[in-house]
Amino acid sequence: MILPIFLMFSFLLSSSSCNALDFCVADLKTPQGLAGYSCKKLELVTVDDFVFSGLHAGNTSNLIKAAVTPAFTAQFPGVNGLGISIARLDLAVGGVVPMHTHPGSSEIIVVIQGIIDAGFVSSANKVYFKTLKTGDIMVFPQGLLHFQINAGTTPALAYVSFSSPSPGVQILDFALFGNDLPSNIIEETTFLDDAQVKKLKGVLGGTG
Amino acid sequence: MILPIFLMFSFLLSSSSCNALDFCVADLKTPQGLAGYSCKKLELVTVDDFVFSGLHAGNTSNLIKAAVTPAFTAQFPGVNGLGISIARLDLAVGGVVPMHTHPGSSEIIVVIQGIIDAGFVSSANKVYFKTLKTGDIMVFPQGLLHFQINAGTTPALAYVSFSSPSPGVQILDFALFGNDLPSNIIEETTFLDDAQVKKLKGVLGGTG
Amino acid sequence: MILPIFLMFSFLLSSSSCNALDFCVADLKTPQGLAGYSCKKLELVTVDDFVFSGLHAGNTSNLIKAAVTPAFTAQFPGVNGLGISIARLDLAVGGVVPMHTHPGSSEIIVVIQGIIDAGFVSSANKVYFKTLKTGDIMVFPQGLLHFQINAGTTPALAYVSFSSPSPGVQILDFALFGNDLPSNIIEETTFLDDAQVKKLKGVLGGTG
Amino acid sequence: MILPIFLMFSFLLSSSSCNALDFCVADLKTPQGLAGYSCKKLELVTVDDFVFSGLHAGNTSNLIKAAVTPAFTAQFPGVNGLGISIARLDLAVGGVVPMHTHPGSSEIIVVIQGIIDAGFVSSANKVYFKTLKTGDIMVFPQGLLHFQINAGTTPALAYVSFSSPSPGVQILDFALFGNDLPSNIIEETTFLDDAQVKKLKGVLGGTG
Amino acid sequence: MILPIFLMFSFLLSSSSCNALDFCVADLKTPQGLAGYSCKKLELVTVDDFVFSGLHAGNTSNLIKAAVTPAFTAQFPGVNGLGISIARLDLAVGGVVPMHTHPGSSEIIVVIQGIIDAGFVSSANKVYFKTLKTGDIMVFPQGLLHFQINAGTTPALAYVSFSSPSPGVQILDFALFGNDLPSNIIEETTFLDDAQVKKLKGVLGGTG
Amino acid sequence: MILPIFLMFSFLLSSSSCNALDFCVADLKTPQGLAGYSCKKLELVTVDDFVFSGLHAGNTSNLIKAAVTPAFTAQFPGVNGLGISIARLDLAVGGVVPMHTHPGSSEIIVVIQGIIDAGFVSSANKVYFKTLKTGDIMVFPQGLLHFQINAGTTPALAYVSFSSPSPGVQILDFALFGNDLPSNIIEETTFLDDAQVKKLKGVLGGTG
Repeated sequence: MILPIFLMFSFLLSSSSCNALDFCVADLKTPQGLAGYSCKKLELVTVDDFVFSGLHAGNTSNLIKAAVTPAFTAQFPGVNGLGISIARLDLAVGGVVPMHTHPGSSEIIVVIQGIIDAGFVSSANKVYFKTLKTGDIMVFPQGLLHFQINAGTTPALAYVSFSSPSPGVQILDFALFGNDLPSNIIEETTFLDDAQVKKLKGVLGGTG
Repeated sequence: MILPIFLMFSFLLSSSSCNALDFCVADLKTPQGLAGYSCKKLELVTVDDFVFSGLHAGNTSNLIKAAVTPAFTAQFPGVNGLGISIARLDLAVGGVVPMHTHPGSSEIIVVIQGIIDAGFVSSANKVYFKTLKTGDIMVFPQGLLHFQINAGTTPALAYVSFSSPSPGVQILDFALFGNDLPSNIIEETTFLDDAQVKKLKGVLGGTG
Repeated sequence: MILPIFLMFSFLLSSSSCNALDFCVADLKTPQGLAGYSCKKLELVTVDDFVFSGLHAGNTSNLIKAAVTPAFTAQFPGVNGLGISIARLDLAVGGVVPMHTHPGSSEIIVVIQGIIDAGFVSSANKVYFKTLKTGDIMVFPQGLLHFQINAGTTPALAYVSFSSPSPGVQILDFALFGNDLPSNIIEETTFLDDAQVKKLKGVLGGTG
Repeated sequence: MILPIFLMFSFLLSSSSCNALDFCVADLKTPQGLAGYSCKKLELVTVDDFVFSGLHAGNTSNLIKAAVTPAFTAQFPGVNGLGISIARLDLAVGGVVPMHTHPGSSEIIVVIQGIIDAGFVSSANKVYFKTLKTGDIMVFPQGLLHFQINAGTTPALAYVSFSSPSPGVQILDFALFGNDLPSNIIEETTFLDDAQVKKLKGVLGGTG
Repeated sequence: MILPIFLMFSFLLSSSSCNALDFCVADLKTPQGLAGYSCKKLELVTVDDFVFSGLHAGNTSNLIKAAVTPAFTAQFPGVNGLGISIARLDLAVGGVVPMHTHPGSSEIIVVIQGIIDAGFVSSANKVYFKTLKTGDIMVFPQGLLHFQINAGTTPALAYVSFSSPSPGVQILDFALFGNDLPSNIIEETTFLDDAQVKKLKGVLGGTG
Repeated sequence: MILPIFLMFSFLLSSSSCNALDFCVADLKTPQGLAGYSCKKLELVTVDDFVFSGLHAGNTSNLIKAAVTPAFTAQFPGVNGLGISIARLDLAVGGVVPMHTHPGSSEIIVVIQGIIDAGFVSSANKVYFKTLKTGDIMVFPQGLLHFQINAGTTPALAYVSFSSPSPGVQILDFALFGNDLPSNIIEETTFLDDAQVKKLKGVLGGTG
């Protein structure tokens, strides 16, 4: 009595196992396409493609006393195409995640330890800014400037989830002062003083 | 007077014929991507990529007295990327399509012959259940558990259309009892009795 | 021992039943939005919103000996938002569905009775044309001109599925000759002769 | 020198503040549409629409020793339309989140405290199952059956992020045994024994 | 003081530069996929992938006295995946862009020089037709028949933007009369007279 | 012979005219939803909903010697839901469009008169910067910082097309210095000096 069921479903099941896209674990060696990577062959996929143990505490011994440890497609190929990813955020006392945007992703932060000042600015130019306590969450809509600051006297820990498997990040200071964008162009388009621009280029390695 | 028109349009037409994606017949030999397969070269595409004659009567000589014959991307590469596919459903007297979901597709059934009991359960836990007569249609929203049963005294025939070219199917009994999911895990997460789990594992080939 | 489960899930279930969009049966009295209609209140939804018995044989006693009977959102509100709909196509002997497009939907035809000549033209200007026998299916990609003709000596019956709940249809002759588009504009933009344009305007009720 | 800048941008800024959809805080009193709720008027939006402090520890004094506390659109209107939401998961010792699906959302779990056995079943019927330690993450693709079990000797805490602001949930046992789906239909479509069905209907409040 | 910042961001930045899809310049040598082409390697991308200087005045010395010069993905690979493209339209005195559709794109025309009669027909068969002066814009919704005619006594120039990087175009006369669609099929599906069909086939190179 | 055709199509046409969404002219009085506005009733729609004559030369007598005149949904309701919009850009000699992003839209600029320096910065921090001559086009991918500067000795005119009907704009200086974001927060998250921040707050009207 067992075989007939198998026979009945065999055609459907074999076709679905070959073609239905329940998931598409990134084959990072393929050329990247508009919607992500091509899929790893199903017979090579294991549970370890869907589990990631690499969100260790980041090293915050740096100027901004902060570390972001991502689990995006590049680190965690199982999220490819699933519309979601996550990162760990460590903020030492005084730590800051500088003003930045994610060009193609919204974000939710959940505070696990400590107190965090967080905010974003809308395109109507309004500031949405609040002190988050442990257990609080805040959402930052796609593409808008936002930031996080450790507002307490102990290290802070948070997880940030994204609505994209490869959210991208544009950190304002790096975009302005960490490349070869000519100083006069920066000054004309931001109204910053020449001395300020050159000082930050010095810190962030910019040229031109 | 003929040539000038051709000259005028030649640039536009040649570019559109190379690039516009009217359709994208699946090249099943390419690696599968998030949104389906890469496209067969246009010069190799013929009308036979858009026509399928393989929806023959299925063999219902099996335990559940039912057969599903799909025209998904794997069988019918012309639907790749077009957001639609179809299958033929044969239900002998007493035939049943067991409880299942399509994780990424809605479905419409149209009854061609016979009488079919069909239903689905919403995530609010409500049952939508009805006896369908020849000519009736019913829609099953994406991702919800649903089923079809021959409710008459003659064989039933139906066509089921999907809102995806590769809808996928998760048949509840196979997901629970037809693989190596440990019995104690099944019991803890479904509240089913151990004897029941082991009995159905026996029927469906499950281990663990 | 029963109540605790209910208590445990009560928050989750009540929230999901209020908000999760398993489906969105169209409330046809609301203003139509970009993505369809607003949803009928969940407590008013019944199985009859998901079942439609109105795909009766169409009346083919007309010039083109054809009838299309739709189950789109307007007739079958349960498909609102689900990315799929269906229609019944009756073609008497000699019946024709004239050249037309669906601006926002692909289509699959399945022939239930009779023989149908069907075809479409790609934007690269190539014709994909075939005679379909009973049981054959053909897919017509979104937005391209296509047609169906009864190619047999008996009435033909088919179902056509769409990748949109409100596919829309632009019938070429009605678009050109069934409204007030000025004849000189038609002639300049189609190269048709004045006599031809005026003759078809006469048949199809066009003015101007 | 200040005014001219304002004059220059005034038209653009006022138009963008009225129309650009940076975000769309749900006005829960409007009828729900296919893509969520209509937007709260911008002048009424405050930072508190984007911050949520309600993810308190859930009450796990119930049969399954588990609690899920959601921050979906209904509880946290700021996520409306942003493609993301989050929930808190508390699992007492022995706690279980039973087998379930999210019909329209993928999910990532991050384990904050304790040890959790988690798994899902693909539509190709393969089990992806692993023990997650504190700090581990796992992704569950959209629409597939999955579960979580406290695998340790202490309470477990996790956050689960979703790729939808209103993910919905279909809990298998409630779908089968917690409504009026007739027992004979359940038995025919799941192959479960009558006694098993009736026993679980008794526990979960099912009728019919 | 400089290095620590770099150290802190190095992981995040290197991952984002490898994976975040700010853009996806088409590698036209890869097989085309459903959503466009695979991405050119980031290290090979230069500003010249995002700038195009090829929208020169078209040659209008042809029967219809018109020329369309596209900057679609094939000519301008930088738009791949960005949901937008543009073309230049030159209309000599008496010039006409014949009746056509874009199966997967809406269009906005902006008139730079001259006067243009433009219009489209809805699927409800209504004509939206107007004379556009220099500086006017008009939008043509996706998939609907539309046209443009130089309505003035001087050459006209316009730019047309599209909501797709590869909009495609189906020119009515070419679709009907410029291929091997059999004359009797054209006549049955358009109600055009045999003489008219054969005359235009002669002009446009149709056979059959 | 005329009436039968009408009879045959009457059902189909009347349903399509009520429901098919060829377009959805914004009814700006309705509450805005996630995907735009509800649709103006079809019987009230005229050609003037699809034509806009308001892209007049902007007044560049201001500090930045620039003006942007939009035809977004708020000014041009016909683009609602069509995935496209346009604006006119006037740059007097010395004119600048300051550094800004569009959170949800890509952009193509076409230079009609004059010479424009334009550029954007990727999230990998690379500058793509070029001098555009009359007739040149450049594409700015979604969500990335970009700018335009009149690089010539005569006024410049350009049109900018967007891949969204309501693209939104976040102008960097206004986001930082034109609202009540506290100076210390700005300084911590941008590394700008206090004096610089206060100077620009003075110019742009910022407080806090």
